[in-house]
This record gives sequence, C-alpha cells and structure tokens, in this order.
Amino acid sequence: MSAEEVRVRPEAALGGMANRERAASVMAREGLQALVATTPENIAYVIGAPLRTTNWSMQIYAVLPKDAGARPRLVLPTNRLGVIAQMGVPDAELYLFSDFFVEGSPVGQPSTPDIDLFYDLLGRTAVYPGPLEALAAALKDLDIPQGPLGVDEMRINPALYAKLGESLPAGHVRPAYGLFREVRQVKTAAEVARLRRSAELNERVEEEMIHLIADGVHEEELAAHYRDRIIRAGGTPAMIAVGAGPRSALPLIEHYFHRVRPGEQVRFDLCCQLDSYWADTGRTVVLGQPSEWQRRHFAAVRGGWERALELVRPGVKASAVFAAAVETVQRGGIPHYRRQHVGHAIGLELYDDIVLAPGDHRELQEGMVFCVEVPYYELGAGGFQIEDTVVVTKDGYEFLTHLDRKLFVQ
Amino acid sequence: MSAEEVRVRPEAALGGMANRERAASVMAREGLQALVATTPENIAYVIGAPLRTTNWSMQIYAVLPKDAGARPRLVLPTNRLGVIAQMGVPDAELYLFSDFFVEGSPVGQPSTPDIDLFYDLLGRTAVYPGPLEALAAALKDLDIPQGPLGVDEMRINPALYAKLGESLPAGHVRPAYGLFREVRQVKTAAEVARLRRSAELNERVEEEMIHLIADGVHEEELAAHYRDRIIRAGGTPAMIAVGAGPRSALPLIEHYFHRVRPGEQVRFDLCCQLDSYWADTGRTVVLGQPSEWQRRHFAAVRGGWERALELVRPGVKASAVFAAAVETVQRGGIPHYRRQHVGHAIGLELYDDIVLAPGDHRELQEGMVFCVEVPYYELGAGGFQIEDTVVVTKDGYEFLTHLDRKLFVQ
Repeated sequence: MSAEEVRVRPEAALGGMANRERAASVMAREGLQALVATTPENIAYVIGAPLRTTNWSMQIYAVLPKDAGARPRLVLPTNRLGVIAQMGVPDAELYLFSDFFVEGSPVGQPSTPDIDLFYDLLGRTAVYPGPLEALAAALKDLDIPQGPLGVDEMRINPALYAKLGESLPAGHVRPAYGLFREVRQVKTAAEVARLRRSAELNERVEEEMIHLIADGVHEEELAAHYRDRIIRAGGTPAMIAVGAGPRSALPLIEHYFHRVRPGEQVRFDLCCQLDSYWADTGRTVVLGQPSEWQRRHFAAVRGGWERALELVRPGVKASAVFAAAVETVQRGGIPHYRRQHVGHAIGLELYDDIVLAPGDHRELQEGMVFCVEVPYYELGAGGFQIEDTVVVTKDGYEFLTHLDRKLFVQ
Repeated sequence: MSAEEVRVRPEAALGGMANRERAASVMAREGLQALVATTPENIAYVIGAPLRTTNWSMQIYAVLPKDAGARPRLVLPTNRLGVIAQMGVPDAELYLFSDFFVEGSPVGQPSTPDIDLFYDLLGRTAVYPGPLEALAAALKDLDIPQGPLGVDEMRINPALYAKLGESLPAGHVRPAYGLFREVRQVKTAAEVARLRRSAELNERVEEEMIHLIADGVHEEELAAHYRDRIIRAGGTPAMIAVGAGPRSALPLIEHYFHRVRPGEQVRFDLCCQLDSYWADTGRTVVLGQPSEWQRRHFAAVRGGWERALELVRPGVKASAVFAAAVETVQRGGIPHYRRQHVGHAIGLELYDDIVLAPGDHRELQEGMVFCVEVPYYELGAGGFQIEDTVVVTKDGYEFLTHLDRKLFVQ
C-alpha cells in the first residue's frame, strides 16, 4: 500500500450534533431536566461520536441538560478515556467509573499529544465506583440531582434503570428513546452536513458499481467493491442489497449468488455509515437493452417516486405522501402495487423517526431528512428501485443526492 | 477485481450453537421453561447466525426451550424472511409479524432457489400483528404458554418486556442475559470450531502485519491492511489497536497518527468477528535491535503470561490465575505492575462471562475459551502484549492460536 492510500480520517467534529433548542422544548413539555443517552446513536448525538463497548453490560451515558447553555456530561468506564484523548475531548464534562491501570513512565520520555492528554485527563478526572455513582455526580454538578430525567431505555442495563428509578422521587425517571428520536427528527446544520457527506460517498461508490456491471460480473464482486471503497473512505458498510436478474426482486440481500447476464437488471439498495450518519440510496441498472417489461415497470416506480417528492414540503402529512405515491404507481402501470411505506427519516439510525407510511399522520417540517423510495419487488421477475435523500426546506426539499434518476443502461 | 478474489462465504452452519444440555440444567435450576434471546449474540447462539435490525425498536426473538428435543422458535419481522431464505433456514420454527409486501410474478419465470424458498416460506408461515403475539404463538406451540420464561433483557423493548410480564403469571418473566452468558461459558464443539477459525484468521493477518513493519510505515497503513484482509475473508474488523513507538502504550487505539521508526516497538491487539465469533490476539514487535529496556519488560510480561497458562485447567479459580500472573510480572522485573484482569472468556461477545480478575472466584471448566493477556502500558515509554486464545481441556488447555510468542524483531 502506498502512502497515498493511507486513509485519512476527516477531522472529527467534537461538538455534539444535538438540536439543543428542540431538545429543551421537548423536555419542557415533558417536565424533564435532562435526557440521558445510552445507545451509541444518542451518545453520538450528544457528544459528536459514538463509543464502542465490549459487551452488553458495559454502560456509557451522555447527559443532555434542558438548559441549552449547560455543558453535556459523559459517563464512561476509565478504560475508554484513552479513546476520548485520541478522538479529541468532546464538549462535555467527563465522569469516569471503574479502575483501569496504566503507568506513567519513570523514564519520562516526551510522548505524543494524545498520550499526554490521556495522562492529563486521567490525573484530573474523578473516578466513581460505578456508572450510577458517576451519573449522580454529573446530575449534582448540573444542579439537577433529583431529575426528573428522561433515560434512553434501550441500552441502559434494566437493573440499573430500576435502581436509578428507586434512587429518585417516583416518576422522576422515564423512558426517553422515543423523545430522543423526536428531537432528532429536525436535523441541525451539522447533521445535514454529515448526512450530505455520507450520501455523497454512498453515491460515488454506487456510480462506480454501475460502471462495473458487465456480462459475468458476480453480485459478490459488486458488493466487495462497495465494502472496500466505503471502508477506505472511513465509513462502515452495512446493508448491501446488490441483486442481479431474478435476485433484484429480493428486498434485503446479504448473500450473493448470481452473475449478471445480458438483459438482466441489477437493483442496488446500499447503506453505509460515515461519522455515525447513515446513507441509504438506490438505483436500477439494466445490462444491455431494457425490455418493454423493464421500461414499463421502472417508469411506474419512477412516477410514484416523483409524485412523492412533489408532496414533500413542511405541513404535509407523511401518510399523504404515501397515499399519493402508491396511487400513482397503481395508475402508472402496476395496478396491484402494494407497499408498507415510501420512505423513512434517516440520521443516526437508518430508520429515524417518521416513516412515509399509511399510519403516520405527522407533518413534515423544515430540517427533516428523508430517504424517498417507491420500490417494486416481483419474485420470479425482478425488482426496481430509485432511492434518494432529501432535506425538507422552507417551501419544498433539497436533494442530498445527485446521481441521475434514470433507468441506467450499461 | 479478478474472479479469484470474489469472497466466498463459508457455508453457513444453520444449526444453533447452543449447549442445550447446559441450557436445560440452568433452566431447571431457575425453574424456567425457555430462554428468550433478544440480542444478536444470543440469537446467533440459538439459530446459528445473527439478524440485523434497522433501529433499536425493531424486535427479533429466538426461543430456546428447556426440553433439549424441542426445536427453537424464531420470531422476526416479515421483511427479514428473505434474509433467512438466503442464509438457509435455521433449525427453528418461524413466527412472523408485521406486513411486508412482495409480489409473485404473473410472468411466472423460473427463479433462484433462495427466492423460491422465500416465496414458499411467505406462503406457509403465519403472520401475527406484533412480536408479542408471535411470541405467544411460539410458546403455545411449545406447550409452555405460561412460561416461566427467562428473557434476555438487553435488547427487548422495555415496554414490551413489561407487557409480556403482565400477560403471564407474576414472576414468570425474569431477566436472562446473565443466564445466557452462564450457559455460553462452556462452548460446544461447533463454537470451538468457529472460535478456532476466527483466531486463525486473526493471526494470519497479524503475521502479515508484522512483516509489513518497516521504517516510515504508518500505523494507519497497518490498520488498513487488517481491515482489508479481515473483510475479504468475510469477517468484521472491530477493535484494531495498532500503536507504534510511544503510542504502543495506549490500551485502546482507534485513531492512527504515528509512523514506525527504527528502535520503536509496535503493539498489536487485534479483534475481529468471523461468523459471529470473536478473535482477540496480540503481539509486540520491535523494528531493529530491541533495547535492554524493551527486552526486560517484554520478558516480565511474557513470564506472567506463561505463569497464567500454567494454572489454566479445570477447577482453578479465575482469581487464582490472576494473582499468580501479576505476582510473576512483579517479581520478573516490573515491581509496580498493576492490572485489572489477565484475560477474559471470548465467544459471541468479545468479553464473554468469566474474567481472570481478582473478584472472580469461579472455577475454570473444560470447554471454556479464554484470551490470556498480561499487558503492560507505560505512558511516555511503550506497551507490551502477548495475547493468545486457549480452550480449557480435561487436564489443561489447548491453544487456538499458534503464532510464535516471542518479542518479534523486524
């Protein structure tokens, strides 16, 4: 590997991604003084980056105070402090728990800046016996020792959740995974910037894959190209639906068996994460001249997708976007078309809150980011997809994706 | 990419990995009729492979009945059924929930075996409104509609856990993440085989990395080589501690800043997953002639590691292994040596249950698998590591790792 190929990690943004104003308003409505993040996604929301754990019982918490001027607090095991020093100290006060031993050198040689910072942080950060003691100290320092707290219930050890509840007045600990998701519905500028970079990376690799399609190319070769390129760019490949020929009709694809043949279509639905933010985009490609059947079905899907976008603007209900898109596909050539949704919010989770689905009557708002997709899967025949990412603007939307929306012919 | 480079996934083992006898005995002791897995790790334990979700609220459950002759049950959203058809149907009865629409083709072209299987499964598997209804059907079919159940509390939606508890007699739903971990302490032959393959892959790449060390090589180049090779082999790279020179003293490394220079040491502590099972191995390498300081500290660490292994056999307490290893390092040249553990069980989690630590007085048993490590981190100077994986045998241990245990000189 040449020096040029060394992956250079983009400078980590060390501030949190959180919409503090929206968070404060949700907390005020719910009578809460702080939200406590426990999942890697919500922790990244508060401090700007997720933190890895070695098993399900290891606990990390990030406290987002209602007071938008107060600094977040990060509760973490001492052995994770070195990682903090490497990624840059987030805009949060640190509270450690559990012992972890590293020694200062009696030799006293000069060291690297991250090690000096690690050692310095170790020396001046209090270490508590366990995560709840560290959390209590954080709440005390925030002058909200009694809460009330909304706690992301999905990644706190339930036994600790119960203990926390017992240590505070009744009702002062309430589940908050849903509240975090509600706050995260409206993205901050920093989040949109990350989503844009993630979508752009995804599309760049998707375009390369389109050009790789040729007679005899194996689905696995295309998937491997995706993995390789995303990882070299510092991202994490996740769901890689690459289906050729009949397998283009499989919604989710995790195993690859088929080689592309002339006349076959390839459906891409590609998902990765970059700096914690997801991308999810899709296209359909035909090797050689598309058949009448392929053209007709793609046109119907594309019509529904266009109709969905026509409705995307503040004040429109998610369910209304769904109904219009599905009806358009049905009238456009697939009368039996059915679908459970025509898109979903995207952000720190692949499916963020609000789905463009029949049951979801919430209104779109400026700053929400959606993947819009109206795919059709016909087992035994093939599948069609266009999926793009848009941010809702004051009077419509702006694409975060730019790849041509045609039926690609390769 | 040539055809030869196409990644070939090893034939997925579709049976579960579970030690059914040990599970039955734990359930008998606890008065439980079944264990319900909710985390990807415990689901993989029951059905042989994990299943991906798109956000934290998506639920997947795998039911392991006490009766070792009864088939496990898998509760999953309908949209995950296609993935099941691709990986091969596990040795479990399926229970679906939620709608997901795919259409059969009126064209009726022949399809691929996985699509035919998907379509066939869709046609003959009952779909329930939600995960709890599907779980109730599974329990009814197992003739244990009332439980009592041990439920892996770490990845079930807490609201659903509460609802499940209310639907059954008091005390019939109890947390079971710890029970799953207890059952998983003693590995089955299928698990040891997977751990062996994972360790062998990890070591093969580690050896390549040792040979890549040269003047001016960047930590990131070494880390990138690891990522690339593990992914090409079908694995998932996770923690990649590659620290050169002073950075060899950082326990966890996730950002890479340093180029190797002559006389510097490089510490590897490398973790990946292959077919759900973790590997975690480490070595220390010096570029050029090791200094007296490097030789002396490596010898002390190696002495402690050897002492730990001398004690590994059934009946020895984890804490006894710890005490002997630490004392040996202290007597062997690092009198101020401190450490929180000298190894950990490994399996479906990087840190499985039982840690070779002062507070853990449980006895080792045949079939347990441990990573044994006695690292030393001196900030401002450097770090040393040997980490190997062993399976406890009737009268000692067997290495799953084979790379030379010397201080490598490159």
